[in-house]
Amino acid sequence: MNLAEAYNELMEHSKEVIMLNNIRSILYWDFETYIPSKSVQQRSEQFGYLATKIHEKTTCSRIGELLKLIKEDSAYDSLNEIEKRNVYLVERESTREIKVPADLVAEIAKQSTIAVQAWKKAKAKAPTNNNAYHEIFKPELDKILNLSVKRANYLDPDKSPFDVLLDEYEPGMTSEMVDVLFKELKEGLIPLIKKCMNSPNQPDKSILSRKIPIIIQEKLAIEAAKEVFYDLERGRIDTTEHPFTTGFYDDVRITTHFYETDFTNSLYSVMHEGGHGIYNQNMPKEYIYQPVGTYCSLGFHESQSRWMENLIGRSHEFWEHFFPKFKEITGDIFSDVSLESMLHAVNVVEPSKIRVTSDEVTYCLHVIIRFEVEQELLSGKITTEELPQIWNQKYKEYLGVDIEHDAEGVMQDTHWAGGGFGYFPTYALGNMYSAQMQATMKKELSDYKELIRTGNSKPIFDWLVKNVHRYGNRYDPPALIKKITREELSPKYFLNYLEEKYSSLYGF
Amino acid sequence: MNLAEAYNELMEHSKEVIMLNNIRSILYWDFETYIPSKSVQQRSEQFGYLATKIHEKTTCSRIGELLKLIKEDSAYDSLNEIEKRNVYLVERESTREIKVPADLVAEIAKQSTIAVQAWKKAKAKAPTNNNAYHEIFKPELDKILNLSVKRANYLDPDKSPFDVLLDEYEPGMTSEMVDVLFKELKEGLIPLIKKCMNSPNQPDKSILSRKIPIIIQEKLAIEAAKEVFYDLERGRIDTTEHPFTTGFYDDVRITTHFYETDFTNSLYSVMHEGGHGIYNQNMPKEYIYQPVGTYCSLGFHESQSRWMENLIGRSHEFWEHFFPKFKEITGDIFSDVSLESMLHAVNVVEPSKIRVTSDEVTYCLHVIIRFEVEQELLSGKITTEELPQIWNQKYKEYLGVDIEHDAEGVMQDTHWAGGGFGYFPTYALGNMYSAQMQATMKKELSDYKELIRTGNSKPIFDWLVKNVHRYGNRYDPPALIKKITREELSPKYFLNYLEEKYSSLYGF
Repeated sequence: MNLAEAYNELMEHSKEVIMLNNIRSILYWDFETYIPSKSVQQRSEQFGYLATKIHEKTTCSRIGELLKLIKEDSAYDSLNEIEKRNVYLVERESTREIKVPADLVAEIAKQSTIAVQAWKKAKAKAPTNNNAYHEIFKPELDKILNLSVKRANYLDPDKSPFDVLLDEYEPGMTSEMVDVLFKELKEGLIPLIKKCMNSPNQPDKSILSRKIPIIIQEKLAIEAAKEVFYDLERGRIDTTEHPFTTGFYDDVRITTHFYETDFTNSLYSVMHEGGHGIYNQNMPKEYIYQPVGTYCSLGFHESQSRWMENLIGRSHEFWEHFFPKFKEITGDIFSDVSLESMLHAVNVVEPSKIRVTSDEVTYCLHVIIRFEVEQELLSGKITTEELPQIWNQKYKEYLGVDIEHDAEGVMQDTHWAGGGFGYFPTYALGNMYSAQMQATMKKELSDYKELIRTGNSKPIFDWLVKNVHRYGNRYDPPALIKKITREELSPKYFLNYLEEKYSSLYGF
Repeated sequence: MNLAEAYNELMEHSKEVIMLNNIRSILYWDFETYIPSKSVQQRSEQFGYLATKIHEKTTCSRIGELLKLIKEDSAYDSLNEIEKRNVYLVERESTREIKVPADLVAEIAKQSTIAVQAWKKAKAKAPTNNNAYHEIFKPELDKILNLSVKRANYLDPDKSPFDVLLDEYEPGMTSEMVDVLFKELKEGLIPLIKKCMNSPNQPDKSILSRKIPIIIQEKLAIEAAKEVFYDLERGRIDTTEHPFTTGFYDDVRITTHFYETDFTNSLYSVMHEGGHGIYNQNMPKEYIYQPVGTYCSLGFHESQSRWMENLIGRSHEFWEHFFPKFKEITGDIFSDVSLESMLHAVNVVEPSKIRVTSDEVTYCLHVIIRFEVEQELLSGKITTEELPQIWNQKYKEYLGVDIEHDAEGVMQDTHWAGGGFGYFPTYALGNMYSAQMQATMKKELSDYKELIRTGNSKPIFDWLVKNVHRYGNRYDPPALIKKITREELSPKYFLNYLEEKYSSLYGF
């Protein structure tokens, strides 16, 4: 078997794994949108089947043989950059998967389902029962935490569990690197928040609660999707409890949730998920069934969603362009509202308890709290017993808010219940990537703001397609950010962006 | 390896095939309902992948080894009836599939997708372009026809391609048997149609065109689904161009289509697909992932749908029960219409061009035309070139109607485009099965009509579950009809049923 044959066979294996993932994403979408209420058990059997198949295909001994053949072949260097990357990515994934015993994989899958159920139950009870976290959630959280640490130790016993898990979401990123970035970020954010809070120039948030019928919000959602160039001929928008994006290339699905008296919820979740959506729609089609044909990292994915939601969707220029259309669609609901009032309202800075609804300036502090707590939890420095108390202290210290119960505290997110340790930093990294890339883009598209203001932002979209989406998974995040911006990741661009924007909004 | 081990391993293989089919059915449902317009190519790749996997799993050499081990085991006779049936069904399926080369399977999957696209395009153009069939559809039809014949020849070169393909849909049934049944049927139907046509007592069809807003028809659809005991907690109703049913057990999906001025279209398609739906929902759960845990045949499937649509949905008793509810839901639209007028209108007998909207009496003639044409097409006695002309002649001869263009003629159905040759007879068989079973049921449930009249038809549903659905695929159709009715299939019950019903409606 020569090099080309071995490589092609390896790619056939990859194709199958990607195909199964693709199929799974459609079943997942259906599960979250239209599945009949009593069909859940049957679907979970299908998910179990697909998970097993994907694990089998990723770890089968033939992959090891093919990798050996390829890497030991004297012609190995004749492979091009893309081919070498594919080989590297298959090896990384299969080496990782092989290290974890199959029964641990199954146990984690099972325990995460149990823990998510317990989390839901405990979260619902927490507002009226102070012990809900301890009685219902903690025992299951302990189990999934221990299993996750066990898994991390299988993957790399020489590294801290946190670093091992973070690397799965953000390859090449370490807690040390994140630590440096987050310290600088925190130091910049805290005074900025204070300046906003202390400004006499506060927005009238009440306009955001004006009632907009769902049918009108649906029209706004379609417009918002178009604004971010989300292709509705290769995608859909549906409604679910929690918005998400799934699917890739020519079949991408985003979801949103409509609330009559909270239109920004759907408007911005469509722009956010639309940002994820365009990434998935515009990855390099020529590599659709190869490892290189997927996205770079969760952080980079978040950079696209936050770009659309915040850098564009909450910008002055965007509202200059969008407000007339918005007013036309909403009739006379906002006829008395000025552009400046609307802009300031959608950019209100206000320390709060809930990450997902927090503003652009305070958002990263929510992530930093999780990062700090999570590291200590995984290293055993703190226990789940004391977790709520530490959580609440940090919220008081960093954001000045009092957590009244664990549903608005340590149990607000589902990630840990689902075994998603090491995931949170990617949200803040996404903000930093986006601002740093925007700085580069502004140099290349000197009329950047003008493009948005005049509703001609196609060149911005094209730039993102060319510089981010089309690369697929050719580079790890540290290399990709450097390739695009010619610099390593730094919080300064994000801080500068916030400083410039919010000093103007709040007048300081 | 002992018998139990070999049998269990064989069942593991079956489970995987059934799981993949189950997954495919959800992807198919999505394909027909919510898929974005430009996602078709990607989905067809998934279908191709699943088809290949299913073929591989069905034909893998291990199955042959296991079957050999099982059948040669001295303890073979200790297997119970269900286990033996499972072994038989696996063997039948794998023996069949092994005969067809994998590349032919893939080619058929691909070509059927292309041909269906061409059919759609040609059908849309046919009303204004006389050559649409010849220019757009015929080249693709030729390909799928040739591939289907090729496949049939691989399956059994000694039998006619038509018989080979028919046997896949209706195991144990041959064209010779169908021929005998259809001759008797035709001889009974033609004079019956004449009697209806010549009767002075004609219904006022115009009431069926009264405009009912879609939102009200949706309510009727839900009621219709409940009438046939279709479980909406383990199923859904969506809208598609052509109604269909897919999925099984706890996740069944039916579809319908609403037309403002044609309410019977959605009402009866829901009852029809609901009949298919209850079959799929009530197969024997204990065998969900075994071959015996599926349905008997397409003909038996159709017997359930036609039962709900016609034997119940178009009966005097049903309208006695349903009309008050119907009037309540539709407001004053039908306040001037009597029960007898409505009943006669929904049972109008009228030779027409379109099978799917044809009445109960003329319906089987549409099927018989297809049966006759299809046999000659597959045996090469006629070509696709002359097909439209022959089609139109037969419609003139049997039904007295003039086909004006191919969209209402040879291109009305999608079956051939999708490679479904040998499928059509099952529609007429379904009518015959249903009437014959109804005759048996009436002996066992002496208050049959009263149950429907009073809206207490649960015992009828229960009878069907017990005597049809719960058997799953334990018997081939000829054995099942004999088991249920203690007789071989005969058209006489269906003809008697029609004679009794229509002589009363038309007064002859």
